[in-house]
Amino acid sequence: MTRRFDGIGVTPLSGVGTVVWYAPDAELDDPPAPEEVDADAETARFEEARTSAREELKRERERTAERVGEDEAAVFDAHVQFLEDPQITEGVEEEISNGLPAEHAVERTFDRFVEQFEGMEGRMAERADDLRDVRDRLVRVLSGGERVNLAELPEGSVVFAERLTPSDTAQLDPERVAGFVTVTGGRTSHAAIFARSLALPAVVGVGEELNDVAEGESVVVDGTDGVVVVDPDEETREAAAEEADVEIRDDPVSTADGVPVEVAGNVGTEADLAPAADRGADGIGLFRTEFLFLDRESPPDEDEQYETYVEALEAFPEGRVVVRTLDVGGDKPIDYLDLPEEENPFLGERGIRRSLGPDADLFETQLRALLRAAGSERGGDLAVMLPLVSTVEEVTAARERLELFADDLEREGVEYAVPEFGVMVETPSAAFMADALTDEVDFFSIGTNDLAQYVMAAERGNERVAELGDYHQPAVLRAIRATVEATEGTDVWVGMCGEMAGDPDLTELLLGLGLDELSMSAVTVPQVKRAVTETNTEDARALAERALSARTKNEVRRVLTENTES
Amino acid sequence: MTRRFDGIGVTPLSGVGTVVWYAPDAELDDPPAPEEVDADAETARFEEARTSAREELKRERERTAERVGEDEAAVFDAHVQFLEDPQITEGVEEEISNGLPAEHAVERTFDRFVEQFEGMEGRMAERADDLRDVRDRLVRVLSGGERVNLAELPEGSVVFAERLTPSDTAQLDPERVAGFVTVTGGRTSHAAIFARSLALPAVVGVGEELNDVAEGESVVVDGTDGVVVVDPDEETREAAAEEADVEIRDDPVSTADGVPVEVAGNVGTEADLAPAADRGADGIGLFRTEFLFLDRESPPDEDEQYETYVEALEAFPEGRVVVRTLDVGGDKPIDYLDLPEEENPFLGERGIRRSLGPDADLFETQLRALLRAAGSERGGDLAVMLPLVSTVEEVTAARERLELFADDLEREGVEYAVPEFGVMVETPSAAFMADALTDEVDFFSIGTNDLAQYVMAAERGNERVAELGDYHQPAVLRAIRATVEATEGTDVWVGMCGEMAGDPDLTELLLGLGLDELSMSAVTVPQVKRAVTETNTEDARALAERALSARTKNEVRRVLTENTES
Repeated sequence: MTRRFDGIGVTPLSGVGTVVWYAPDAELDDPPAPEEVDADAETARFEEARTSAREELKRERERTAERVGEDEAAVFDAHVQFLEDPQITEGVEEEISNGLPAEHAVERTFDRFVEQFEGMEGRMAERADDLRDVRDRLVRVLSGGERVNLAELPEGSVVFAERLTPSDTAQLDPERVAGFVTVTGGRTSHAAIFARSLALPAVVGVGEELNDVAEGESVVVDGTDGVVVVDPDEETREAAAEEADVEIRDDPVSTADGVPVEVAGNVGTEADLAPAADRGADGIGLFRTEFLFLDRESPPDEDEQYETYVEALEAFPEGRVVVRTLDVGGDKPIDYLDLPEEENPFLGERGIRRSLGPDADLFETQLRALLRAAGSERGGDLAVMLPLVSTVEEVTAARERLELFADDLEREGVEYAVPEFGVMVETPSAAFMADALTDEVDFFSIGTNDLAQYVMAAERGNERVAELGDYHQPAVLRAIRATVEATEGTDVWVGMCGEMAGDPDLTELLLGLGLDELSMSAVTVPQVKRAVTETNTEDARALAERALSARTKNEVRRVLTENTES
Repeated sequence: MTRRFDGIGVTPLSGVGTVVWYAPDAELDDPPAPEEVDADAETARFEEARTSAREELKRERERTAERVGEDEAAVFDAHVQFLEDPQITEGVEEEISNGLPAEHAVERTFDRFVEQFEGMEGRMAERADDLRDVRDRLVRVLSGGERVNLAELPEGSVVFAERLTPSDTAQLDPERVAGFVTVTGGRTSHAAIFARSLALPAVVGVGEELNDVAEGESVVVDGTDGVVVVDPDEETREAAAEEADVEIRDDPVSTADGVPVEVAGNVGTEADLAPAADRGADGIGLFRTEFLFLDRESPPDEDEQYETYVEALEAFPEGRVVVRTLDVGGDKPIDYLDLPEEENPFLGERGIRRSLGPDADLFETQLRALLRAAGSERGGDLAVMLPLVSTVEEVTAARERLELFADDLEREGVEYAVPEFGVMVETPSAAFMADALTDEVDFFSIGTNDLAQYVMAAERGNERVAELGDYHQPAVLRAIRATVEATEGTDVWVGMCGEMAGDPDLTELLLGLGLDELSMSAVTVPQVKRAVTETNTEDARALAERALSARTKNEVRRVLTENTES
């Protein structure tokens, strides 16, 4: 009998397959009486287990860096830190000296720390998952348990689990696994992040009901709507299978009536470049540069940045890479930047405001590196984009600096070129001033996540108001339309690089609103390319008109649904 | 010789007069040798001084509540708390037992705490001023010093001081004092707040240069531009004198070409009602209701609210009082509301979002009280206004509740009337959706402080970005114009209740943008009324057109300056 489970979709992909339950956590037997425990022997076993766990982590870190990405692999460094933590180690040793065997001592000590972290908010609470992961690893090693090999599941498996650790997720092979579903977890859990990097359909946080599903049942995982359908009817199965079987196209695409549309990837680190190219992105519409500045003692110098930018250009020899200058503010931990504590960091000194203010030196280094990369013979074309622009003056000032540094390079005899120059449209102000901004730039890229947040005055990360900040809000559509409208009759092209751009259900609407480029996480590039080829411009415009006259986000959704059904 | 000093203007008023220096802080002599100090006697003196200080504070609190307002008087409660603070008291007693006389012990102990507070940010830093105020009071009482009587200065005095404490400022008599100027202080200092309540021209934070000005010099205080002109030329003097001598008009005003414009007051407590009426406000365009809910253990009940609303209506028998429903969020301390801690409270659950969510009970009580007050025979007309609206659904939902509670009252046989119903336009979303909102409301009131903050994505209280959130930004003007434009051809009237509405230099521009009502703090009601009568609608529209096509806020300022000069 068909059953539906609602959860949190974390990748906008669908998968069809067979349920395989993954339950690695065996319960420990009751410990023996304390007098039967040889404390010295158990302490030695604990030490050996730590050594083995450390070696395992090293191997998994390497594999993850290679298969998923350097950023994602960093979670294993945190795990090693927990292994080395003197408070935890001493805790375990004390439990052993009190008469517990090593595995029980590990379990009890880690559980104490897990409890502490669980009481905290946000990121700290996520550390509880890391601690559990390290705990289970140690207990498994101590019990001589073999790891269930997630890399060798039968083709078409959909992994069901209470939860998946980063090490579990990193083992999954997208060629064999059709998706995964977990009882716990949220949109920002490691499993969710890995799923996106691996382009795996996934739904998390379904809840305890999931345990009623039996091994071997047929299942559809709909990561777009966060729905799991067990024992689906033929129609649902086929629709999902067709959706899952999307073709990867390496060539640029056009609408059905021949209007070319650039479909690009968003990347947050160098490791994201290859997956974007692999999924068929024409270029990079948003190359975030924060990763270059985070987790280090001092900022990267001009040469280091130059190399990174050129590397990105080389990944897209025929395409364009839009590099966004440093976008940080008071909510990011960068010690060497002296970032202020602000009551509302999202309304504070961040993005271009810092680059023209306290971080002017960093901005100079970055612009020089970008000018040099633009002049490199290697790879595709470079474009520079400013974050969080809210006034015309900011753009003029930044452009003057770019020209000034170009003159410096000219005088120094260093090879350079002046790149395409554009701004993010992510403040309501930028949308209201778009006509004046067209005189200053070559392109706009609409950042729908922030734009929706500011237009609706609702923080996207705040659960209590997240529904308000939805990009289906008609006010957000109107801000987008106002921006595009201001460019009509000019040479300025308009892209979009927020989450909205990667939703294939919205591609027709976005083309109807007049966008020239869409940039998204690699995972949905093929789906959006297909949606572009299926779009007819005239129909898209009519659809956009209907959506723009909607009064509520539900009306917008209805307009979209009616369009799909008609 | 004419000299100009720049500072922070805190009231948009001008004053002309003669410098009177106020320097109450006498330096203490060096303390005697410890063995000469009788610790018991000094401790007794300290106790007596605390008692006297407490009595003085009580009297000043009463006088301030009466002359300035209940809210402003609350600062004296904080002073009493410092007097009672066991840490401070013990600190002083310890210094005495170490051999210091009482006044030196007070000075040393308080200075230690002042230093701690000075190291903090924002509101905590302002506590340093309160501590200094309490310190100086105790030292004066201990030294047997008489208070300089600020209430009896010669007419036309402009008080110059290092700083003015709340007790100093509360003594100033606006009939005799033409203004004040201080070396230190900021826009949110107590002195600044008192100056606005007393409608006194004032410039603060001028800096040490001010000490070069001699007693008895002639001076113009320009609180609009934050400028102090010492020994001004005749022209400057006359312009300021004319500005200061504005007529208070109790009757409604129209533009030079006969278009009626409502000029109303913003009030934050009942104590603000009389000053608003005294300065000639036609009604209240923004009656904030937060004061009813703050500083208490449980929310006010329906009857208490009803009485307060009717009292407001009685203050304007011929006018309209626009009551804004409760507007709180995570940055306000109201224990009984269980307000969340949010990373960006200004983008969080506040205003109408709480009234339709966790505070639905409070909203019901408030709407019932408002329906009953609207049905009262006493006083003028009542209107209800919703804060922080960002979607059409919110307005529909709130209206449905109002109608539902009206039905309840009908059934209960309680007298009521359905009031005028409107929304604040303070999110960009509300401006973008203004056309759809016109179907739901009788009026809009544009809240320019929040609107500028959200349009520019720049928090008004954050010094690092405050310049960006300026209401001269062309993007803010365009958001205002879009809102007004959406009402054209409908019966919906549009008011404005942010700081911008109270700036007489902008009255012509605002009327040109199409506003029907302007609501402001009482102090500038006469200036704005005069500006209305001097405005010609056609010229105002042309001015608005020029301002709307400006690209930067400096261009907007230039358009305004050229208009004044032409």
